[in-house]
Amino acid sequence: MMHAPTPDMLRLLERTLHEEIPLTRAMGVTVERCDAHGLVLRAPLAPNLNHKQTAFGGSLATLTTLAGWGLLHLLLHERAPVTVVIQESRAHYLLPVEHDLVAVCPLPAAAPLEKFRRTLARRGMARIELEAFIMAGEATAVRFSGWYVAFDKAHYPDVEPV
Amino acid sequence: MMHAPTPDMLRLLERTLHEEIPLTRAMGVTVERCDAHGLVLRAPLAPNLNHKQTAFGGSLATLTTLAGWGLLHLLLHERAPVTVVIQESRAHYLLPVEHDLVAVCPLPAAAPLEKFRRTLARRGMARIELEAFIMAGEATAVRFSGWYVAFDKAHYPDVEPV
Repeated sequence: MMHAPTPDMLRLLERTLHEEIPLTRAMGVTVERCDAHGLVLRAPLAPNLNHKQTAFGGSLATLTTLAGWGLLHLLLHERAPVTVVIQESRAHYLLPVEHDLVAVCPLPAAAPLEKFRRTLARRGMARIELEAFIMAGEATAVRFSGWYVAFDKAHYPDVEPV
Repeated sequence: MMHAPTPDMLRLLERTLHEEIPLTRAMGVTVERCDAHGLVLRAPLAPNLNHKQTAFGGSLATLTTLAGWGLLHLLLHERAPVTVVIQESRAHYLLPVEHDLVAVCPLPAAAPLEKFRRTLARRGMARIELEAFIMAGEATAVRFSGWYVAFDKAHYPDVEPV
């Protein structure tokens, strides 16, 4: 399991996103909280509109991708230097989103997370599947799953990830 | 099959993207060409960087999503008013992209395209799967597939798509 990140860690994650991935500034992405329910990212609707005045599919996919990336970033922060990249993703767009985009990436279950940590320690590289969601009121609007790969930079100094 | 779109139609598609989906302006998306090979969209690297100074996965997913959406927009333009939305997508990130992002959405095969057009005409709604790619030199860097749904607005005036 994870110790709840301090407010400083969440601010640092937000600064990292804004400094290293400029599109997150254009989208207005903020780190809202991280607790036992997982990591929550938010983006206002205006810069993320589509042709129908609802949230653009590309923004929805991007925010869920970032929620998974950010959660792993927090989970592995004591293990730095580790690089996390996305390898494969799937998104189902179920309902339109007509308000701020709020993406939640729940903590993975204890067993796969423990296996991921052990493999990373042993091999310097490990994969894990994370799910993320965007809600529209009480209903799920977007269901996302992504396979992420973490590389220990000491083992893989030349990884050039997506 | 499709008559090659005129330069005016491509400029109109680019203007539609920029006006109706503001994130495409932040990404610097341009419509490069559309011919027998399909629709080609481009975005410069700088606004689409990630934490490793290569193209951000969210931008790669978004550009491929837009390439499919744009191709259907062109294929159906004579059939307006039709609304196209994405329903499901899958992306495989195979290689880092270290230059401008160039997404290609090939024309679908004749048989599924014809079935899609017939179903849309008969039921006012139809689904089609499109593939799209982003290359890194000669190799495929991103492989994307998306299911898109087209709605005839005369049949479905209240659709609020993603």
